[in-house]
Amino acid sequence: MSLHDELMTVGRQAVAAARALALLNTQKKNSILNAMADEILQRRKAILYANARDMEAGQKAGLSPALLDRLQLTDTRIDAMAQTIREVAALKDPVGRTIRRWSRPNGLVIRKLRVPIGVIGIIYESRPNITADAAVLCIKTSNAVILRGGKEAMASNSAIAQALQAGGASKDLPDHAVQLIQTPDHDAIRELVQMEGLVDLVMPRGGEALIRAVMEHARVPVIKHYKGVCHVFVDETANPDMALAIVENAKCQRPGICNAMETLLIHNRIAPSFLPQAARRLAEQGVELRGDPASRDLVPAIQPATEDDWYTEYLALILSVRIVPSVKSAIEHINHYGSHHSDAIVTESKASASLFTQEVDSAAVYVNASTRFTDGGEFGLGAEIGISTDKLHARGPMGLEELTTYKYVVSGQGQVRT
Amino acid sequence: MSLHDELMTVGRQAVAAARALALLNTQKKNSILNAMADEILQRRKAILYANARDMEAGQKAGLSPALLDRLQLTDTRIDAMAQTIREVAALKDPVGRTIRRWSRPNGLVIRKLRVPIGVIGIIYESRPNITADAAVLCIKTSNAVILRGGKEAMASNSAIAQALQAGGASKDLPDHAVQLIQTPDHDAIRELVQMEGLVDLVMPRGGEALIRAVMEHARVPVIKHYKGVCHVFVDETANPDMALAIVENAKCQRPGICNAMETLLIHNRIAPSFLPQAARRLAEQGVELRGDPASRDLVPAIQPATEDDWYTEYLALILSVRIVPSVKSAIEHINHYGSHHSDAIVTESKASASLFTQEVDSAAVYVNASTRFTDGGEFGLGAEIGISTDKLHARGPMGLEELTTYKYVVSGQGQVRT
Repeated sequence: MSLHDELMTVGRQAVAAARALALLNTQKKNSILNAMADEILQRRKAILYANARDMEAGQKAGLSPALLDRLQLTDTRIDAMAQTIREVAALKDPVGRTIRRWSRPNGLVIRKLRVPIGVIGIIYESRPNITADAAVLCIKTSNAVILRGGKEAMASNSAIAQALQAGGASKDLPDHAVQLIQTPDHDAIRELVQMEGLVDLVMPRGGEALIRAVMEHARVPVIKHYKGVCHVFVDETANPDMALAIVENAKCQRPGICNAMETLLIHNRIAPSFLPQAARRLAEQGVELRGDPASRDLVPAIQPATEDDWYTEYLALILSVRIVPSVKSAIEHINHYGSHHSDAIVTESKASASLFTQEVDSAAVYVNASTRFTDGGEFGLGAEIGISTDKLHARGPMGLEELTTYKYVVSGQGQVRT
Repeated sequence: MSLHDELMTVGRQAVAAARALALLNTQKKNSILNAMADEILQRRKAILYANARDMEAGQKAGLSPALLDRLQLTDTRIDAMAQTIREVAALKDPVGRTIRRWSRPNGLVIRKLRVPIGVIGIIYESRPNITADAAVLCIKTSNAVILRGGKEAMASNSAIAQALQAGGASKDLPDHAVQLIQTPDHDAIRELVQMEGLVDLVMPRGGEALIRAVMEHARVPVIKHYKGVCHVFVDETANPDMALAIVENAKCQRPGICNAMETLLIHNRIAPSFLPQAARRLAEQGVELRGDPASRDLVPAIQPATEDDWYTEYLALILSVRIVPSVKSAIEHINHYGSHHSDAIVTESKASASLFTQEVDSAAVYVNASTRFTDGGEFGLGAEIGISTDKLHARGPMGLEELTTYKYVVSGQGQVRT
């Protein structure tokens, strides 16, 4: 069977599974999820064994320590995987809810109902727990899922997917509701994102190169974020202590995450007092600073920033710094160089805060808080399938509701149009 | 300037316009719209003159009478165009509304706010009034719009766009908020749908060939419907008089519209009594029937249907007919051959209605009403920019709200993540 035919079969099976999933009630879906969690724990040894094979191959292939860490499974990580599944089972099910109901002068009653999207493709890299996380969020919302993990994690992903399938099957989960594409052929991604009419949505999760490869070929809807070039702007009226705490947290608390700050913008009226303090504090945390000439005049230890730096997501203890003359110019910098992800202002001025939140064109805009809060859990969504910097369908952290769509059900007594 | 550079300039101008538009309040936008309506009436002669040139060229080029009718502008149609603009001005503005507001245990206050999408591209055919309709819906929602009409309507579209721009300019509409791509080069469509980072959404409106051409090249999000293969299923428990009225209305009231019925499905228990009556009634309206063998056994005058017929959007007085053994099999036919647009069941059985509305995977599912109601106006949305058979962002009739997205604004007192 050609790769194309193989994937078309996967797609058609997923469509059939999605139709069957749409008929399951919440209680049934929750019992499936809990059985999946049980089976993950039951198969702990097999999963760890598969993971050891992936780790060994990864070491031989010379994967970086950071990549190997993401790839590795431990007892604790397997426990956490099962725990996450049980937490998703405990969440409220959005499917079937009435979003709005109204009637028309001719007596028609229109209901806008929340329904599953159908078939969702997830393309991801290295971390094997995404296999379980993504699958259960899709099943909770009655969507069939097609998973395509990184080839370095293939054995681990396969063991996890088998556990989910076996747990599901014990509670009559429809066949093919969770499918994992196992071929190492890279063209599988291209095939998957061109399956119009079978795949309703693809969500790529990973580095910018992966996302660009997906977008190059996509014919089905994709929700994504390329990167998180997040900013903190310290306004002239900022409380300096608050600003220092937010800057340190946004940069240092977990620099490898997409909602970490990559560029610090400082109003020129507060920069002479603020920047030296901030530079000292960040240096203590091992942060390398790269700045514009004005910032280097104030703190000579700052290295010069290039034009490229303003666009860069370091995901590391490096920070670009720029002095700006106004809120307006901070906003312009963010809209031009940023990635429309998460950006913060620290200010005591209501006018500055209002201008900033209105004009910064990002998924999440903060006043006097760290950008690190852009996260499904921190927002109270209960779970997160990803973060979108797109504007269509979903923006920012995506929870269960973002894995659904709606349909209109219109009830009449024989109405015809005149 | 190359076509690519030309369109990139259009895109960058649109982005700048969108930023300026986002700052206009509702009153300002409404005054702009009303000035546009005034200017359309003011320039009636110039618009009719431009349209006469398009009509003359169209006649020479041998356009069909139906196409020429869609192309033609008259005094009445110009009055209607201005009237529609005033009606859009009178609609409620969704931009700036708080969708949801909540606070977190750490004191953060999260607001989910409705905001403009940004830059919207509209690609359409023949009917010049779309130039005005689409532009004003975008302006009302603070989106910049890039219009690309059919080449047969270029002079008319240009005259209308100039009127909109002049009316807007008189009330300080930001420059380039409404742009019309005038080059006849067909590659302009390909360029437009690949302007990632500049164009946020493209909506193609027209025949299936146009939509397929757009999808072939699209890299930016597209919302669309290919076609409307709509069904009416007459269940065994249907009230025959109601079913006859709905069938006649869904097929004949305006057969050229996407929400008209193309296939009639009849339960085999009611077919012997119902189909002969329906066939007679439809024959009186000049409808040609094409059916499966079971329907031809009942009414020999019915022509044989081919497999292709079940997929076909006739947009004419032709109807496919099939006898089915159950609600389930009607649902399977609709999900397999249909276009996920609008489908109806006529039934007195609550169980059949419930099964049908749950399992038919279409934007609008009707119980005891004509499919012809799938329309922004009929749904009470106040206006319609198009109809989506996609599942992401918008499904079914799209009004003003569907031309917006949201952002999260998070307010704190110095919160950092631990």
